[in-house]
Order: sequence, then structure tokens, then C-alpha cells
Amino acid sequence: MNVTVGNRTRHFRTVTFDPANNVVVLIEQRWLPHTFKLVTTRDFRETAQAIKDMIVRGAGAIGATAAYGLAQSALDFRRKNLRQFSRHVETAYQTLKAARPTAVDPVNAMDQVRQAMRPGQSVAEQQALATAAAEEFANEDVRHCEAIGRHGEKLIRDGANVLTHCNAGWLAFVDIGSATAPLFAAQAKGKRFHVFCDETRPRAQGATLTAWEMAQQKISHQIIADSAAGHLMQRGEIDLVIVGSDRTLGRTGEVANKIGTYTLAVLAKRHRIPFYVAIPLSTIDWNLKSGRQIPIEQRDPNEVLGAWGAVASPSAESRKPKSVRREYVRVANPTSLARNPSFDVTPPELISGIITPVGIFKPNQLWPQRHSLGFDRRPK
Amino acid sequence: MNVTVGNRTRHFRTVTFDPANNVVVLIEQRWLPHTFKLVTTRDFRETAQAIKDMIVRGAGAIGATAAYGLAQSALDFRRKNLRQFSRHVETAYQTLKAARPTAVDPVNAMDQVRQAMRPGQSVAEQQALATAAAEEFANEDVRHCEAIGRHGEKLIRDGANVLTHCNAGWLAFVDIGSATAPLFAAQAKGKRFHVFCDETRPRAQGATLTAWEMAQQKISHQIIADSAAGHLMQRGEIDLVIVGSDRTLGRTGEVANKIGTYTLAVLAKRHRIPFYVAIPLSTIDWNLKSGRQIPIEQRDPNEVLGAWGAVASPSAESRKPKSVRREYVRVANPTSLARNPSFDVTPPELISGIITPVGIFKPNQLWPQRHSLGFDRRPK
Repeated sequence: MNVTVGNRTRHFRTVTFDPANNVVVLIEQRWLPHTFKLVTTRDFRETAQAIKDMIVRGAGAIGATAAYGLAQSALDFRRKNLRQFSRHVETAYQTLKAARPTAVDPVNAMDQVRQAMRPGQSVAEQQALATAAAEEFANEDVRHCEAIGRHGEKLIRDGANVLTHCNAGWLAFVDIGSATAPLFAAQAKGKRFHVFCDETRPRAQGATLTAWEMAQQKISHQIIADSAAGHLMQRGEIDLVIVGSDRTLGRTGEVANKIGTYTLAVLAKRHRIPFYVAIPLSTIDWNLKSGRQIPIEQRDPNEVLGAWGAVASPSAESRKPKSVRREYVRVANPTSLARNPSFDVTPPELISGIITPVGIFKPNQLWPQRHSLGFDRRPK
Repeated sequence: MNVTVGNRTRHFRTVTFDPANNVVVLIEQRWLPHTFKLVTTRDFRETAQAIKDMIVRGAGAIGATAAYGLAQSALDFRRKNLRQFSRHVETAYQTLKAARPTAVDPVNAMDQVRQAMRPGQSVAEQQALATAAAEEFANEDVRHCEAIGRHGEKLIRDGANVLTHCNAGWLAFVDIGSATAPLFAAQAKGKRFHVFCDETRPRAQGATLTAWEMAQQKISHQIIADSAAGHLMQRGEIDLVIVGSDRTLGRTGEVANKIGTYTLAVLAKRHRIPFYVAIPLSTIDWNLKSGRQIPIEQRDPNEVLGAWGAVASPSAESRKPKSVRREYVRVANPTSLARNPSFDVTPPELISGIITPVGIFKPNQLWPQRHSLGFDRRPK
């Protein structure tokens, strides 16, 4: 999507690959929203480190980054021995996989690249195939998000107020995003609408990343405290909720997503407000039989006990935005502890529909429609 | 309640009056939870300023502070002319009233003191009556909170998990608090229970003040992000919700309270978890005919866009807790705006009961029971 730096507006993807210089170029997401900056990784180890350090996050984005990292390792290799080459690429595969061990997307992405390399008869041929496959993985991610947008924008009436939670935006993918895709598509069609961004405590990805995306795309928006959504619904100020998902159960239609999603779904149901989940197909888990089986990550209590933000020091005004200092402040009582479950599970009866690249489905349609949703037809 | 400073545990009220030295002594609430400190105001103007500067906040606490401020102005007067005395006290009344113009408690409290002064035949007599009446107002506030505790503690089963929101604790009153009163009473009875404190964004009174109170009283507790309550209810980890109220409509049973209260009530209803509101009688508004008439204060968007907290600077370790530096950090995207409604209204059908000093009532019982609740029997 577009980013404006100074007076210039340019299109950026979250991650790109430059095979000529064999570098991966990433948006430094840890510095957002205060500073827009690109980071260049020069080999697969640096790329793995960027995933590990959360310079890049989000399912689609780390998938593409790992795919590019694997291609990067292939291009790195300067000799001709195919066996040594394979061993080298395998090392990269393991290094990139270990960078975010619980995520499934990097593994799927790299498997796709490895599969594509197989027919290559020489190192040079496999290198070319790896580069093309990584690029194809990224492009496919973009096409899927575009397709989510095409289906989802029909839900947005002109003049609508849309609520979203956390960041399932283009920064979480290669471009466009999942929950944000219908918004960008509606904007492209000239529809007017307003977006409420839940701040999404404790990590505030809504207030930081989603709000930054909305501002860059010049979409009318406001940030609200997570607990204000119910009040706004009660007053008739929200017409539609669209969120993303970290894992959607194909068998049950249950949706795991950032903590607070379940609460929004309960509120939306009470107020008869449509509640949609936008996902790429890779998010669907066809194995688990119950949402109870989804492990809920318990994150660092310090996230709840404080906040990260830019310090408005007296001298900050005169400095360039580049040097904005981010600091952690301890908000809570210093002798208290916190619980920090970071995901929750929303049952299918609270979900109006699931927006996928191949259409919008009722949660209980996922399983009957599993073949059109690519289950049992996926590569490998 | 008790506060531990160093190794010493002592009982403190939120506000006390020392007629011998004619000073009001307040807990400096803006420094909590990082630093416990008392502030002494030496005349009614300083007392009014303390209300204005939010050194003291909360309905009962500012009511008592204003009552003491008025008594302080009476004791200030060194001459014998009753007319001049009345004019002097009237100036103090207006100054203290203007310190928090939207609050009704300071006015009610000072009216009670003025009423009590009337029979006095001399300045000295009126001074003595004012001092006694202010003290009585504060003591009555404490007795009411004690009574709320007696009624409310019956709701707390041994081993219960109780959720509360914002701070309706002893810092908001002279002592004990409203929503916290049942907790302290249950603790005094030897019951074991655990309290989840909603952090209560944006101002985080749950994470700061309520958690500090729980820690001081040695009550088992954890802070959670506001959006985690739904998940915990879903997992069966919450047995009871108790909140306070800023205004409860006697005619309809609707409850205005800190933003997020309505959401908790909706979630509690879905999970069949009892949802109680604890209030002193002064919180009941017998005039308004609909919750729609309650003005919802829209506060500074910067509260949502950032957070106040203590900076853990490298040198902070070595400093005394007294010098902890509180700073505002800008969390959100700097080019985004926020909406900050600070209250919401919960309809009576979501409320299991209203805990008052004279017993627990169904919301729709308030109006039929208005005489036993003191309506039409209150001192002018």
C-alpha cells in the first residue's frame, strides 16, 4: 500500500526481494507508527534474525519473508555441487524455521519453494526456480488479499462505520491485508466510510499499526479504548465488525484471534451488528476438532502492566522523527501481577460470515465446502 | 484501610481533618500507585485546589473533602461578626463548589454542613457545629460503605473469583469504598477469593488504584487487559462481577459507570455470571427518566492515544521510590485521532442487583422502594 514520507507518496510492500543484490527489504515494524524505515537483510541469517526480532510479523508477511530468505540462501551459494547446495539450503530452512517456531506460515512457504526447486538439474536452475517460487508465494499472498477485498467490500455500505480489532492489515501480509482488504477495496470503489480502530491492549497493534495504515491510506478513522466498543454499538455508531484470525477451525467454524475478539462478537450479536472474519485459506486448521484444543498463548505480564510509546521529551520537537525514543512505562501498581492471555476463541454462532479469497462462507459451511476451500487439494 | 510504608502498616483514610491545626490531610492520589504520600492543605483555597488538581477524586472522597474545606473556612475566621463570617463561609462554599463543577457530592456535603451550622448563635458556636458536621459527613460515608460491605459480602463464596472494573475503592470514598466493600468484608470474615482488576483504559484506575488497594490489603489479585474479561468468563474463571456507579437512575434502574461496564454486563449475562453494582444512596438520581438523558463525558483523546506511567530509567533503581518519574508516552500513531467516551449506561435487565447501605435491590425495585432508600426523606 502507499506510504507518505515527507511530501512523497510511494507504494511499498511489507517485504520485497531484490535478487540482483540478493537482499530482502523489510519495513521495520517495531519503529512504527513513530518512524517509517526500511531494513535490508543481506543473507538468510539476517533474514531469520529479522523474523525473530519481530521486525516483521503477521502470518503472510513472515511466510513471504521466510520464502525470500530461502531463495536468498540459494542465491548465496557460489559453487556447483548440487549436494552441497542442498545441504546449504537445508541449513537455511532450519534457521528460518527456528526463527518463529510456533508459526506454520514460514514452513508452508518454504515447503512451496523447496517443492518448486526440485525439477532443477543444476545449482543455477534451482536458484532460478527458488527465486521465482518465492516471488510467486509473495504475489499469491497479495492476490489472495485482493480477492478477500473483492468479496468483503460488498459488505460495506456507503457511509458505514466499521470496527476492527488488532492489526490484520497489510503490515501482517505482503500487502493489502485480510481484515483491511475490504476497506481498501471499498475505498478504491469511492465508498465513504469511517473506521474505528480498537487500540487492542496490551500491545496496542490497533492504535499503532492499523491506525498508521488507515492514516497512510487516508481513510477516515478514530482509535477507541477496547472497552468503548460496546457503548458505541449501543448508540448505533457501529454498522459492521471485521477482524482477522490467527487460526480458524475448518471442522467447527471457531475462530481464534487476538484477545478481545470474542467480546466484540458477543456485543455485535446483542446489537444485531454483522460480525465478519477475513482470512486467507492458509489460516484454516482442518485438523483440530474443538476450539478447546487451541493453545492460548500466555504472554509476558509486563505487557499488561505497562505500555510502550514515544516519549515527548522537550527536545523531541526539534529532532527528526527518525530519532523518536520509544520507552516502556510501568502503568500498574508495581507490587501487582497480571494475567495476559493473548488470544481468545469465538464460537461460530456469533460469526455472520468468514471472508476468504474464494468467497464468503458461514462458519458451519467451511467443512462441507472444504474442497472448494482447497482442503485435500493443497500442494504437499 | 491499611497502607504499608516500609515495614510499618498503618490505617489511613483518604481524607481527614485536623481542627487543632486547621488542616485537611489527603492521600496524593496522582502519585499512586508508585508513591504513597500525604498532602496537607492549610486553607479552603488550597483544599479547593486539591479537588481541582485531582489530588483527591471519587464521589465520597471529594464530598468529604469539600465538607472539611468548608469547616476549615469557618475555623479560619478570627473575628466575631456573624454576618462577615457568613459571607466568608459563602466564599469558601462557592470556591469549593467551582473546583469540580459537574460533581454533585461536594454540594450535597457542604449543604449538610451549612444546615448544621444554622442553629449556632455565635461565630464560635457555628465553627464548632461546622467541624462536627463535616466530621459526621465523613463518618457517615464510612458507615455507608461498611453497610454495603455487610450486605455485599454474602455474595462472595469461599474460593470465588471476582471481577471489578475501574476504582470504586476506598480511595474514591473516605474509606472502604463501594465495589471493594464486599471484598474487604469477606476478607475480614476469613473468606478466600481472588480478584481480577480490569486495567480500565484509558486512565487505568483499575491497574493503578484498585490493584494498589488490593496489594495494600493483601488480597489475592491480578490485573487483566479490559478485553480479557470475556475470555476468562468463557473459561469459567469468573464467578461474580462487582462494579461501582457514578449515577444510578432510581426511576429506571439504569447504571452509568466507567466506560466498559456495559460490556462486562453483556458478557456476564451471556455467561450467567451475577453482575452487581455497589453504591451509596447519594449516587441514586431520582429525577432523570431515561439513561439517554445522562450526559456522557467525552474526555481528552490523548488519554486513549497514550499512557501515563513510571519510567524505569537506568538511574531509577538507585533512587528512592519518592522520586519515581511519571511520564506520558504516545502509544498510538501520531497522525491519528481518538474518541474517548468515558462512561456508559448499563440497562437494568443486565444487572443482578444493586448493593446499597440498606440492602440489595433489583434495579426495578429502586423506585417502588424509594422511601426506604431515603428518597423524599433526605435532608434538603
